[in-house]
Amino acid sequence: MAGSKNTQVLFASRPQGAPTAANFRIVETPIPEPGPGEMLLRTVYLGLDPVIRLRMNEGSYWPAFEIGKPLGARTVCVVVKSNNTGFDPGDLLVMQGIWADYMISDGKAAVSAVNTQAANLPKIDPSRGSITAPLHILGITGFTAYVGLIEIGQPKHGETVVVSGASGAVGSVAGQMAKLKGCRVVGIAGGARKCDFVTNELGLDHAVDYKRSDFAAALKAACPNGVDIYFDNVGGDILDDVLARLARGARIIICGAISQYNNTTPVQGPKNYLSLLVNRARMEGMVVFDYADRYHVAIAEMAAYLKDGRMKSREDVVEGIDTFPEALTRLFTGENFGKLVLKVSD
Amino acid sequence: MAGSKNTQVLFASRPQGAPTAANFRIVETPIPEPGPGEMLLRTVYLGLDPVIRLRMNEGSYWPAFEIGKPLGARTVCVVVKSNNTGFDPGDLLVMQGIWADYMISDGKAAVSAVNTQAANLPKIDPSRGSITAPLHILGITGFTAYVGLIEIGQPKHGETVVVSGASGAVGSVAGQMAKLKGCRVVGIAGGARKCDFVTNELGLDHAVDYKRSDFAAALKAACPNGVDIYFDNVGGDILDDVLARLARGARIIICGAISQYNNTTPVQGPKNYLSLLVNRARMEGMVVFDYADRYHVAIAEMAAYLKDGRMKSREDVVEGIDTFPEALTRLFTGENFGKLVLKVSD
Repeated sequence: MAGSKNTQVLFASRPQGAPTAANFRIVETPIPEPGPGEMLLRTVYLGLDPVIRLRMNEGSYWPAFEIGKPLGARTVCVVVKSNNTGFDPGDLLVMQGIWADYMISDGKAAVSAVNTQAANLPKIDPSRGSITAPLHILGITGFTAYVGLIEIGQPKHGETVVVSGASGAVGSVAGQMAKLKGCRVVGIAGGARKCDFVTNELGLDHAVDYKRSDFAAALKAACPNGVDIYFDNVGGDILDDVLARLARGARIIICGAISQYNNTTPVQGPKNYLSLLVNRARMEGMVVFDYADRYHVAIAEMAAYLKDGRMKSREDVVEGIDTFPEALTRLFTGENFGKLVLKVSD
Repeated sequence: MAGSKNTQVLFASRPQGAPTAANFRIVETPIPEPGPGEMLLRTVYLGLDPVIRLRMNEGSYWPAFEIGKPLGARTVCVVVKSNNTGFDPGDLLVMQGIWADYMISDGKAAVSAVNTQAANLPKIDPSRGSITAPLHILGITGFTAYVGLIEIGQPKHGETVVVSGASGAVGSVAGQMAKLKGCRVVGIAGGARKCDFVTNELGLDHAVDYKRSDFAAALKAACPNGVDIYFDNVGGDILDDVLARLARGARIIICGAISQYNNTTPVQGPKNYLSLLVNRARMEGMVVFDYADRYHVAIAEMAAYLKDGRMKSREDVVEGIDTFPEALTRLFTGENFGKLVLKVSD
């Protein structure tokens, strides 16, 4: 936990396959002092997002982390000292931060996904839910699920929607949104505990355990009329199994492919892609940046669902900035259960 | 050529991989006699379509050929004897026929792709072009290209369109339609002769030879702003190379995957499919049956283009019903140059 030193995780080398401790270097530096107009921020939570793994590679669609610099992440920070009239000590902010106990900020949000012009960093409104909600359901993660399902999937009442990673940060929002749109929703998750959560907590109609040896048959049984919408977070064999079950006119939302992010071999292409032809179906990718103008409206909608209980979210909290990279690795092994966040300080 | 006997090609066994002579049996039977209301038809041309290969398999999206029965194909037939008041000897008909010199018909078109209700077999209007045109550019083949490009591709003026199999039956129509819509069109074809045809005869802007060892680099050079629309007839490595060059918001029309139809191993999935995500692109399949209500309008439009020279078509004619399966094999080796038709009789 944060003390008199500033612990930082620096990026030491690009991983081949799964990241190991050798790819990172933990350094301790003095706590920095804010200059005029600046603030000293203390990191409270870091969001462990799959995109962090993508940014360790060169040539992905995200800017690559620089060797020797701190890793980046979505963070919840608290203002410790402020020389900026817009912020007071104790304010909670959500921002693109770094893997460090402390950082200096001028109070401006980087131009990014949902901030298309430089603006002040958004303060967290604790009345909307937990202070970590902006790292997932009430942030870019939740908005990704919202946009993918609504804009690309275009769900209609009564359609069968399948969501992979259904107990995870994006999948749990996509599945619950599909229920709210009147769809029959089947969640894919790994293991009995997650499957129970998907049906009993999130309220999806069925859960199918991808660790079952008869997964394809179980998926078929859960989707007797085929799959109208598939919200895909994982790629790999599961994508092929769903392709084999498409209904006519199906839409596949390619949101990610977490099964492939640690690959040292080429990505596994969906060998059943000709099912798109047979079923007059489409597979479409989307990047949430393109929908920035709808961000605040969508988040307000989901905040209302959270408040009245129509939507639920689950977090998996690990503690200590130095638990990296073990903590991140859980995303790729499926060991996390809910949105993985790293608690850095109280 | 048709004589006093009726030569038929029967389907003897389902091929594993490329069809061989052992998969077929040629038999000679007497010429049949038409009953009341029936006609005796003589086959003049057979269209050698890739779908014939698909129908040799069980479990494709087309009805499988039955073992021991004649193979089916799109045919141009001439009426030899008629006990049907709707048809006279000498009438030329286009229809779903069989691999035989002669056949009996009641004059009704099977309910199919473009005949959604039983109707009289359509007669060929020779003023619209060659009598074989209804087997390709003025038939289901041409309509497939038209629907795929216009309905799924939604081409806009100035966009870059790439077409594989660009000198072939579907590709040549798709490429020329894209030119007529004001697009910059790059055709992919095999070898210098076909590439010359694509640019000099069909009038596409560029041709790229997929047999070049530097194909991916040549494709990149031909599409400096990326690919807005890809009309895919071939699948395989070429699909992956195009995926790597997509422009934002690209549309890929999955019309077929001729590179995969003789596979004895699973279909090669596009390993670059995550380019759909990065580029907010979509890959969509279509089956021409769904657009039957637009068939006659589209064919009339293309007949007008053919007549005034804005569209061209090329045929590759082989002779003799007993040249099967060698003739069909040319489709998969790329040896055909233009629409492959089999001349059965004069």
